[in-house]
Amino acid sequence: MPTKISLGAPWQERSTAKKNSVFDGVPFQFIHSVLEFRDDDASSVLDVPSRFLSLEELSITALNAVGIVRVIASKKYTCVQVLDAFTHRAAIAHRLLNCCLEFRYDAAHAEAERLDRHYEETGKLVGPLHGLPISVKDQCRIIGTETTCGFVANVGVVDTENSVLVDILMRAGAVIFVKTNLSIGCSWGETINNVIGHTSNPFNRSFSCGGSSGGVGALLGIHGSPMGVGSDLGGSIRSPSAYQGLWGLRPSTGRIPYYKMLNSMEGNEIVESVVGPMSHSPESLELFVRTVVDSQPWLHDPKCHPLPWREHEFQKITAGGRKLRIGVMSWDGCVLPQPPVVSKLEAAGHEVVPWKVDQTKALALLTRALTCDGRGDHDRTIARSGEPDLNLFFRSSQSPDTLLENWALAMERNDFRASVLEQWNATADENGVPIDVYLTPVNPSVCPKHGDYKRVRYLGYTGTVNCLDFTACTVPVTFVDEETDLADAEDGKHDARGDEIPEPQSDLDRAIRENYRPEIYGGLPVTLQRKS
Amino acid sequence: MPTKISLGAPWQERSTAKKNSVFDGVPFQFIHSVLEFRDDDASSVLDVPSRFLSLEELSITALNAVGIVRVIASKKYTCVQVLDAFTHRAAIAHRLLNCCLEFRYDAAHAEAERLDRHYEETGKLVGPLHGLPISVKDQCRIIGTETTCGFVANVGVVDTENSVLVDILMRAGAVIFVKTNLSIGCSWGETINNVIGHTSNPFNRSFSCGGSSGGVGALLGIHGSPMGVGSDLGGSIRSPSAYQGLWGLRPSTGRIPYYKMLNSMEGNEIVESVVGPMSHSPESLELFVRTVVDSQPWLHDPKCHPLPWREHEFQKITAGGRKLRIGVMSWDGCVLPQPPVVSKLEAAGHEVVPWKVDQTKALALLTRALTCDGRGDHDRTIARSGEPDLNLFFRSSQSPDTLLENWALAMERNDFRASVLEQWNATADENGVPIDVYLTPVNPSVCPKHGDYKRVRYLGYTGTVNCLDFTACTVPVTFVDEETDLADAEDGKHDARGDEIPEPQSDLDRAIRENYRPEIYGGLPVTLQRKS
Repeated sequence: MPTKISLGAPWQERSTAKKNSVFDGVPFQFIHSVLEFRDDDASSVLDVPSRFLSLEELSITALNAVGIVRVIASKKYTCVQVLDAFTHRAAIAHRLLNCCLEFRYDAAHAEAERLDRHYEETGKLVGPLHGLPISVKDQCRIIGTETTCGFVANVGVVDTENSVLVDILMRAGAVIFVKTNLSIGCSWGETINNVIGHTSNPFNRSFSCGGSSGGVGALLGIHGSPMGVGSDLGGSIRSPSAYQGLWGLRPSTGRIPYYKMLNSMEGNEIVESVVGPMSHSPESLELFVRTVVDSQPWLHDPKCHPLPWREHEFQKITAGGRKLRIGVMSWDGCVLPQPPVVSKLEAAGHEVVPWKVDQTKALALLTRALTCDGRGDHDRTIARSGEPDLNLFFRSSQSPDTLLENWALAMERNDFRASVLEQWNATADENGVPIDVYLTPVNPSVCPKHGDYKRVRYLGYTGTVNCLDFTACTVPVTFVDEETDLADAEDGKHDARGDEIPEPQSDLDRAIRENYRPEIYGGLPVTLQRKS
Repeated sequence: MPTKISLGAPWQERSTAKKNSVFDGVPFQFIHSVLEFRDDDASSVLDVPSRFLSLEELSITALNAVGIVRVIASKKYTCVQVLDAFTHRAAIAHRLLNCCLEFRYDAAHAEAERLDRHYEETGKLVGPLHGLPISVKDQCRIIGTETTCGFVANVGVVDTENSVLVDILMRAGAVIFVKTNLSIGCSWGETINNVIGHTSNPFNRSFSCGGSSGGVGALLGIHGSPMGVGSDLGGSIRSPSAYQGLWGLRPSTGRIPYYKMLNSMEGNEIVESVVGPMSHSPESLELFVRTVVDSQPWLHDPKCHPLPWREHEFQKITAGGRKLRIGVMSWDGCVLPQPPVVSKLEAAGHEVVPWKVDQTKALALLTRALTCDGRGDHDRTIARSGEPDLNLFFRSSQSPDTLLENWALAMERNDFRASVLEQWNATADENGVPIDVYLTPVNPSVCPKHGDYKRVRYLGYTGTVNCLDFTACTVPVTFVDEETDLADAEDGKHDARGDEIPEPQSDLDRAIRENYRPEIYGGLPVTLQRKS
């Protein structure tokens, strides 16, 4: 339920009111006051929910999204049972991690009851997501909720319409039950804002959950939701997915409808934010995308292309009719990924084609695209509530680009995209078949500790995808093993086995290498990304 | 062949050199000095070519694009014969109408010979456009030609690469033989510039051929080319198509590759120019689009969507499996089309659904999008050569939009597009089937006389499509009959039959009505447009 607070109240009061209203409407038995949020506790809290959930709730929340729609269809559980199990687990998650902004339990419960009644009476599911609880990043507008986008200025403003995606998911039977925390204006790789503060990683609460879609990431990491909706402008779906060992999809623009979602820098089209699913299995991502695309989102969002689900393309990848050709870029020549990331890439064992994109160029273009307004839009929004500047951006004092400068940037972006297309075409083998996908790290760091992000921030591996508008999916591979994933030698020229590695290319490169400590990072997920 | 002139020469010398070099390389027997350009001659010149062409040339140039590839495939004519016939006719057209900027006869002839040899030796056509002569608006870059985009500043600059579309057409077997005249910077509805001046309409040389793709329009109108490539930002394909009775397609963005074409205001993405075909039959447009889409342009142009040719959609429209539902907007509430346009719309006799788009809103958005740089880009380009200002734009003295203003405009455009999508959805009948297409005038005027355009300029009917990024196709219907297409009564409230008509809504509306004179307009084409 939205916060009951005057829009004219001081920002601190609005923030406090918001924090206190997150659980409004949630049954008291789901709220365990004994649990408290920590950001300095290095232990995993992944097992904490099992101390509070019933066996039935545990059994439900152990399922992935595909499993959930299946057990509802088979009448093993009702939509209400499933909703309650996940609400309970998500409430625990929020107590531990500070990952949620608003539960909409009453509305969700009524929807779940309606779905159960419909199924009972007609024997028919309303759609492919019948009864699936979904958590959404706090950019999705839902009638009767509030949508902050991480800004205090939006606390207390009640939505009067749904985002197009929300309509589609609800029509397909999804039960959107909670809105999740995000970085201020979706513009930072840690989940932090003045609305409710920052969010911890369930694998290790002294670590960040990543961002900007970090609330979804943390919630899914502890299985408090079987499916989440995030958004990605420079890695905001993929970083939290990587840091929580999730499958996260950054679609190309024009596939999943963004219309009527709230964002910062709205109207900036040089590089555009996209919305996509995060979940626990590739089949779950498929379920989401197929459902949304089959709903013909282009009939409601003018930016969506009339591009149906392409079963033959899907089969080409999944049915294994022919061997895939996989480009691999384990190092971009700028920032060397930390040892666990490198070793897992090499161990993947695919038929490999060498591949390298000019990530320096991509990053320069992306940075210009994301800072072209001299932070004017951001400053305008924080001024509306008087909330303090978190100082998370570059170029805050620079003047905005002129229109002609911005047009020149659009042309440069086009040329870069075209050059990479030709580079891709040039990987063709003797049969004319180019690489199908390429594999890279998500981030050079496994995961940053709270507050470390500023020091190890490198968007090369994620942001290149945004600059190119490619489709990318995170692939959770394994976990850091502190016994085997040893730090590089201190000379900066050899890894732990004594093999040569490239010398540090920059202070940032050096800082990221030095930041890795196996004894601290042990147990955190290691995730790669696949792009096509 | 490009103009041999120093880039530093005064603009008058560069312009003169360009005019004198249009025919460079064209065999002298195709150039008939007895013919001369006129812009004050009210008679039709459509029959003039028949006085100069051989029977074989007449027979070839009477064919439409589909017919031409068929007679080449059947070996009735060679590619060289076809090229020569159209070059001859196009040379006559240029003498009469001033519609061409550069013939590339030598290169085209070598390509045609190569195609003939290939077919002779292998028995195989190189592609679906094997031997088809195509004329292109002077925005298409072709190695070894020059591409002016209507600016003197580009005279003498030789292209070193092909536009992506040019590559695709050539690979499919097309023989691009001539580049056609256009308005300065593609930004005006008459074809006029300081490079070679203005172009006349072959139906009546005292009339404009329209613009900005007017050179293609005039050339196709007199059958000097079986297929032309134009571009459209506010009606630049459809106006010349209408004024010459042609089929002209304005595709949505992302279908036909624009990459590496020259344009003005490059990088402006609020409303984007698109490239599309103009021809003599719908089958010819289909041949063009199917060929381009089948070539997978998205592998080379990052702005193209991976959207294959959708045969089932095509069949739905053409195979007549079910009756089409056609929206009709004969009047937008602002500017009443002239009598011949109105009467032909009513006579179309389809099952009609009333339809009205807010063209005032569309036009306001489009105007802001096209003038947002305060004409900065245009002024910069004309300053490069010192050519005089033709004063064809609004807001020349206004300051450019800021980036934040421009972003707000992008959002307004999105909202407008979304509102029209919902309006479209709301036309659904009891089976849930909305209108398939809608039909409107192209322009309220049949066609303007030279110099009249400024007085009767109204982009509502064409520009709305650009603002919405819909696909639109002109449909030539008939010709003005001065005996039956009578002017409205002088009271402004009744048509010639005495039936009531809406009173003039504005000075422009009144001016357009008064501009119509059946005795002057007799014989000009009447064309509608179909949008989907």
